[in-house]
Amino acid sequence: MYPKSLASLISALGRLPGIGPKTAERLALHLLRAPDQEVRDLARALARIKDEVRACSVCFNLAESDPCPICADPGRDAGQIMVVETPADLAALEAAGSYRGRYHVLAGSLAPLEGVGPQHLRLAELVARVRRGGVREVILATNPTVEGEATADLVARALAKCDTPVTRLGYGVPVGADLKYMDPVTLGRSLASRRRLEE
Amino acid sequence: MYPKSLASLISALGRLPGIGPKTAERLALHLLRAPDQEVRDLARALARIKDEVRACSVCFNLAESDPCPICADPGRDAGQIMVVETPADLAALEAAGSYRGRYHVLAGSLAPLEGVGPQHLRLAELVARVRRGGVREVILATNPTVEGEATADLVARALAKCDTPVTRLGYGVPVGADLKYMDPVTLGRSLASRRRLEE
Repeated sequence: MYPKSLASLISALGRLPGIGPKTAERLALHLLRAPDQEVRDLARALARIKDEVRACSVCFNLAESDPCPICADPGRDAGQIMVVETPADLAALEAAGSYRGRYHVLAGSLAPLEGVGPQHLRLAELVARVRRGGVREVILATNPTVEGEATADLVARALAKCDTPVTRLGYGVPVGADLKYMDPVTLGRSLASRRRLEE
Repeated sequence: MYPKSLASLISALGRLPGIGPKTAERLALHLLRAPDQEVRDLARALARIKDEVRACSVCFNLAESDPCPICADPGRDAGQIMVVETPADLAALEAAGSYRGRYHVLAGSLAPLEGVGPQHLRLAELVARVRRGGVREVILATNPTVEGEATADLVARALAKCDTPVTRLGYGVPVGADLKYMDPVTLGRSLASRRRLEE
C-alpha cells in the first residue's frame, strides 16, 4: 500500500546483502523524512561509483586513476608486494599505516564450492609483475581462513620458480585479546611464531 | 585509502540509521560489484522519492496522488476513520487486509522527551474531518506503548465534543503466541477483553 516510488525504493534497498524487507522499509521511510541534500548526495554517490571507480591495471586495487595512487607513489617501495584478497583487506592494512610497499589484489580467494577457482584470481598478473624484476619480497596477506590458506599456498606455488622470497603475515594472538577466550589453533600458531625478546 | 567517490558513498550510506561504518563499507563494495542496472535503479528510486511522494491532504498517508488512493476509493467506507501513528503502521494494517474504512495518519506519537508535543500531531485536521460529518466511528490504532496510549488518550479527549463514537483496537495475546511467554500486562488485558464464544 505504499506509493509506487516508495515501494520501488524499498525493493531496491531490500536487494542489498544483509538488508531484509523490514530494514529496507525503515531505511526508505527515514530517507523520505531526511533532508533533501542527504538523499541527493546518496543518489549522486551511487550514480558516480560505477563510472569513476576502476581497478588499477598494475595491482587491481580500486581507484579513480590508473595506475592507482599507491602504484603511482614514488615514495612506496616497489620492491615489496603484499598480496591481499580484496580491496577491503587492502584498505584495512593501509589504515594500519605500517606498510610502505606496494600491493597486489587477487580479487578473491579460492572457494571451490562457490565456483571460484585459480583462473578467477589475478594470479598470472602477479607472476608477470614479479618476473618483470625489481621485487625483493612478496608478502602473502590472505586471510587466516581455510580459503585464505589455500590461496596463499596457490600463490606460493605459482611464485616458486621466480626466486623471489615469499613471506606470510605472522599469526598469533591479536593485541588486546584475552588468552582464555582464544581458540587452540590460534594459540598453537602464536606459540610457533614466538620471538626472543630483544634486549 | 578508498577512491574519493567510493569513500563518499561509504560515508553517505553510513549516515543511514542502523548502518555502521563497516556495514556501509560492505554495502558500497557490494554495489561496486553489483550489476549496473541494480545500482542505477537504486539511484533513480532515491532521486524520485523526494519529488514524487507527498502526504495526502485528507489523511496524511504517503502517496503520489492527492488525495491518496485510499481516500479517493469510493469503495472504502468514509464513515470509519482509523487513527494511526505512522504510514508504516497504516501499511501493516492494509497488508492485514481486514479493514475497509479510511485512515488518519497522526505523523507520530506524543514523546515529550524527544520534543514531540500535541502541536506536532495532525490532531486539528482530524477534529476538522470528524466535524465535517458523515463519520460513524473513529478507531484508535496507536501502538500499545506508553507513547501510543498517551496519544490515544489525547485523541479521545480532542474528539470528546464531537459526539462520534471512539473505539480502541483490541488488546490481547497475539495469534500464534505461547501463553507461558506472554507478559502479565498483556495477559491482564487479554482477560479483560475476553468475549463470549458464539454458538
